[in-house]
Amino acid sequence: MPEHDSPIIPRSEDEKIKVLNRLKRIEGQVRGIEKMVEDDRYCMDVLVQISAVNSALKQVGFSLMERHTNTCVKHAIESGNGDDHIDELMKIMRQFSKS
Amino acid sequence: MPEHDSPIIPRSEDEKIKVLNRLKRIEGQVRGIEKMVEDDRYCMDVLVQISAVNSALKQVGFSLMERHTNTCVKHAIESGNGDDHIDELMKIMRQFSKS
Amino acid sequence: MPEHDSPIIPRSEDEKIKVLNRLKRIEGQVRGIEKMVEDDRYCMDVLVQISAVNSALKQVGFSLMERHTNTCVKHAIESGNGDDHIDELMKIMRQFSKS
Amino acid sequence: MPEHDSPIIPRSEDEKIKVLNRLKRIEGQVRGIEKMVEDDRYCMDVLVQISAVNSALKQVGFSLMERHTNTCVKHAIESGNGDDHIDELMKIMRQFSKS
Repeated sequence: MPEHDSPIIPRSEDEKIKVLNRLKRIEGQVRGIEKMVEDDRYCMDVLVQISAVNSALKQVGFSLMERHTNTCVKHAIESGNGDDHIDELMKIMRQFSKS
Repeated sequence: MPEHDSPIIPRSEDEKIKVLNRLKRIEGQVRGIEKMVEDDRYCMDVLVQISAVNSALKQVGFSLMERHTNTCVKHAIESGNGDDHIDELMKIMRQFSKS
Repeated sequence: MPEHDSPIIPRSEDEKIKVLNRLKRIEGQVRGIEKMVEDDRYCMDVLVQISAVNSALKQVGFSLMERHTNTCVKHAIESGNGDDHIDELMKIMRQFSKS
Repeated sequence: MPEHDSPIIPRSEDEKIKVLNRLKRIEGQVRGIEKMVEDDRYCMDVLVQISAVNSALKQVGFSLMERHTNTCVKHAIESGNGDDHIDELMKIMRQFSKS
């Protein structure tokens, strides 16, 4: 697998703020689920919220995957060494679809 | 759908603490992902963490589902009015498997 | 796990025909995908069909799960020995949501 | 979306035989599930088989996705028009993870 600490093509400030806002919203939703459990809310209502957070997280994941493919994977292919990056992308996709 | 604000058979304090600890850990993991984005960490490493949080959340969901079925759904069936509860459980299961 | 060869409450002929028709349609869809591969059809078009068959199969699974819960599980709970059946249902649900 | 009837880089005979064998096995498994329903087999046993077919189908899908990315998508990027192909791949991945 390619060894990277950071994206080959770093995220712009604007991109970062958008992803961070989505994650902070998700963080708030998780705290909301904690409150529901503290308040002894009906289990099915809690489950609806867990399902919503799962979906929101998956969407963040897919947009990161899309961004990564359009930048780092594409750049690696254009530079003639895309195979590792494609393997890595496929591995994450399989893992992601099971979570 | 049956209208409930809280479980027919409330969670014990011990049960609540266990669920809350798992949710607080997940909340911490989401903050960890925010930190990775702030630190411009490699997209695939961020995705691995998102996948892990998704799995952890699903496990919390399944244990709530299990608890609900063993208590509220079972109690409703024993009292002769389980149909609504079964419908509700199936609906959540379908939704959950897509998230 | 409870040991059964067949449902506690057998399916009616009508129920069986409905499930069999859906499965035969899915069998035909799989043959259709084979034809697409034989005809060198574009990979993404083949993937759209695989995704459709997966969804159709999941729907058959959920309707069997619903039927099972409304009959065998409910009957076991009413007869005072529902715990094994609930464990079994939850185990299948977890497996199903990963497939 | 890019309009294609067949892969930019066609599958070899060997590749085709491998995919077709897997699909024929899945077709046989679906017929096996039909037999289980005809023989009034226990619902949970049927569900285990449906889950197995779902997983097998997903694996065929992922290997087609991998092959497509390593050939057609990579070729399109190298020829300077990869964007449509990347969009198409991401769209299928999202759909696939929900099925």
